[in-house]
Amino acid sequence: MSSASAKKTSMPRNVAAEGPCGSANAAICKVAILGFGTVGSSVARILTEQKHAPLRLTHIYNRNIRRKKVDWLPADVKWTENILDILQSDADVVVEVMGGLKPAEDWIRRALSAGKSVVTANKQLIARSGPELTRLAAKMNRHIAFGASVAGGVPVISGLQEGLAGDELFKIHGILNGTCNYILSQIEAAGTDFNQALAAAQKLGFAEADPTDDLEGLDARAKLAILARIGLRSFVSPESIGCRSIRGIEPVDFDYAGQLGFTIRQISRAELQGKRMLATVRPALVSLASPLARVQGSQNLVMATGKFGGETVFGGHGAGGHPTAVAVVSDIIAITRVEQGRAHDLPVLPEGSPSVSADFTGRHYLRFTVRDRPGIIASLAKIFGKCGINIDSLLQKPGYLKSSLPFVITLEACPTSALDKALTQIAKLDFLVKPCLDLPILD
Amino acid sequence: MSSASAKKTSMPRNVAAEGPCGSANAAICKVAILGFGTVGSSVARILTEQKHAPLRLTHIYNRNIRRKKVDWLPADVKWTENILDILQSDADVVVEVMGGLKPAEDWIRRALSAGKSVVTANKQLIARSGPELTRLAAKMNRHIAFGASVAGGVPVISGLQEGLAGDELFKIHGILNGTCNYILSQIEAAGTDFNQALAAAQKLGFAEADPTDDLEGLDARAKLAILARIGLRSFVSPESIGCRSIRGIEPVDFDYAGQLGFTIRQISRAELQGKRMLATVRPALVSLASPLARVQGSQNLVMATGKFGGETVFGGHGAGGHPTAVAVVSDIIAITRVEQGRAHDLPVLPEGSPSVSADFTGRHYLRFTVRDRPGIIASLAKIFGKCGINIDSLLQKPGYLKSSLPFVITLEACPTSALDKALTQIAKLDFLVKPCLDLPILD
Repeated sequence: MSSASAKKTSMPRNVAAEGPCGSANAAICKVAILGFGTVGSSVARILTEQKHAPLRLTHIYNRNIRRKKVDWLPADVKWTENILDILQSDADVVVEVMGGLKPAEDWIRRALSAGKSVVTANKQLIARSGPELTRLAAKMNRHIAFGASVAGGVPVISGLQEGLAGDELFKIHGILNGTCNYILSQIEAAGTDFNQALAAAQKLGFAEADPTDDLEGLDARAKLAILARIGLRSFVSPESIGCRSIRGIEPVDFDYAGQLGFTIRQISRAELQGKRMLATVRPALVSLASPLARVQGSQNLVMATGKFGGETVFGGHGAGGHPTAVAVVSDIIAITRVEQGRAHDLPVLPEGSPSVSADFTGRHYLRFTVRDRPGIIASLAKIFGKCGINIDSLLQKPGYLKSSLPFVITLEACPTSALDKALTQIAKLDFLVKPCLDLPILD
Repeated sequence: MSSASAKKTSMPRNVAAEGPCGSANAAICKVAILGFGTVGSSVARILTEQKHAPLRLTHIYNRNIRRKKVDWLPADVKWTENILDILQSDADVVVEVMGGLKPAEDWIRRALSAGKSVVTANKQLIARSGPELTRLAAKMNRHIAFGASVAGGVPVISGLQEGLAGDELFKIHGILNGTCNYILSQIEAAGTDFNQALAAAQKLGFAEADPTDDLEGLDARAKLAILARIGLRSFVSPESIGCRSIRGIEPVDFDYAGQLGFTIRQISRAELQGKRMLATVRPALVSLASPLARVQGSQNLVMATGKFGGETVFGGHGAGGHPTAVAVVSDIIAITRVEQGRAHDLPVLPEGSPSVSADFTGRHYLRFTVRDRPGIIASLAKIFGKCGINIDSLLQKPGYLKSSLPFVITLEACPTSALDKALTQIAKLDFLVKPCLDLPILD
């Protein structure tokens, strides 16, 4: 918080007196959660387990709380079935993870009007009413954040808003729907037909009973509309984005695509061309060399292209309670940080941090170059055995001179320190033409 | 800016009166640049070209400015060879892109002490003195940001600080040195030996005349120390991180690694195990299925693993004037945003944004399923010809019934709208067993 002169004059007097996120009281930020489903309960878990930020869970709203109550939350968390208990509470931030447009939108408006900041994961709502809600938040001198509304745990919204804010982005494309990606990568990997892959996705919980929104692109286009606003700074309504279903893709299409050096993914893309915006959500051929082709299962990946910085990639878990909850909690922290006037500062760390060691445990690759003669492997095996290290495999390519023969031994997982001891003894052996090259294998 | 009650009491009176980043005066943030090299001139270019943020370049410091002056900057930008002109100016933010420890560290301290915020790309300085400089900034109620100090244009620092702030990260690993990655991917691709690859890198400007810092891991370990502090919240000095040179890697190692399903990259990794931190920078085998294996040339890639959100990937241009400058300007914007009390808000966009169209131009994949008979290709080719579309290739796999034969035509680049016209006519042809599947090819 840098200067009183920057205080917005539109801020209501009672809000200023009350203080956001505990600015008056030891900077504790009180958080209320609307909706105790998968994401809501994961947000509650992170809030109660994390130690780094001054956040306290104070209220949970849900229908039928008797069915929902859990025993792992502090006893002083207040459970309620009455939204007024939240709106009239002293919570600083309201987290909306109920989904749907009604009553979420109305409740978010009322929370902002009551002087609370809001964090939401509601993509359909933000895609439709984001600008209005932002105006309301600004009018109340509060914040609305929605990092969890696109690509769950992939920090692409903060990436576009913060990390790439200095660039002029003109293109965003990527994989924004985990259901479609799961189905297409299933057809690709197992050669199953579309309906089988869909049924498998439904059985595993990756697709809903009515998968229309996912398959036809309606889910992804809401996310693309949000990314286009943030990254391309252009208002795009979800309805204006052309969509094409992934139904109709058959295993034979992956065969033909593969022959051409491509695979098939549901791709969301938006591109500024002068005053025109091109935007679609549809299945497309993507090069096998592209990071998009490597996206498996329900992962998400977004690529942003800028005039100055070129192409930047963000990837990770696009859905799921925990990753989405990380995005929600990150948004709460961002709001408290801004309200406390902190930017990208290095945390002031305690002196005497952990001891640092290089002693990773893992598999290793050793390349020897030797003057060949009988008994070499036996000598090496004896040293490894004494050091408690197991040999995993031995590789030797043909075509090298016996006077300078390279071969490779891979080792089962062992600490680097044990390997170093063995290598010290091995270095004395007289058949080595040059020192052994040892590399860890990252599995 | 939310509340006067949050104002830090440690803020000196004169600083508050002066106002940071123009909080008193129409929110224009005045920027001074120290060092007009590749990065500095690119920062100047972005500042003068960008229209989204209220930033104004006011001063440039460099030695021998006569040699440096350019004609594309506004005439009112003040050039100076005297650092006092910067320290005593009304600049709100000082950008340090000179590099080196002396005099950069002293000048950054003096800028902070003069009530200016600082943005720096100086990894060695931040790795050594980051915590002290942060304490000084906090004492002065100013900010120091260093998003450009690691991985250039890849927004990993803001990603760890903002987007993943809600997670508990325990592992960070990735490719942080473009020189090593260029050399290793050269040996991999061309089978050249180490010295040839190094010479090529030097010729192309990817490696310095003295490449020691890059090859031995000293450059990457400074970056890893910064990432460990931000992401793993642990103080690590660069010197405590074990390093191993990439010298000694030979083309034969890529052959053997490939046989095992791996390739070789310089990997920086840090992992918390209880109270212990494991950290190294060294060449390692990485699975060909890992995103790390796909990193080509001087690209960078960082993977962060958290208790809740799993693995998140950040990738892009690790070096270069423009990408690094994007990170610098993004940091300036982040500072102005915090000083003006704005968090992750949706920009309030002008009404009537660009018209949205789905009419991308590009290559297309068409899969037909037909009752086979002579003349099919001729009928299709005639329609494409009339619509001004050129056929690129024709693929037909053997082994299908003539009564339901799938084959593929790929088209040269054309607008989707032209293709749609052709497909409307094609849909009327009587040999189609099912509708043609058309997919764009993303090149």
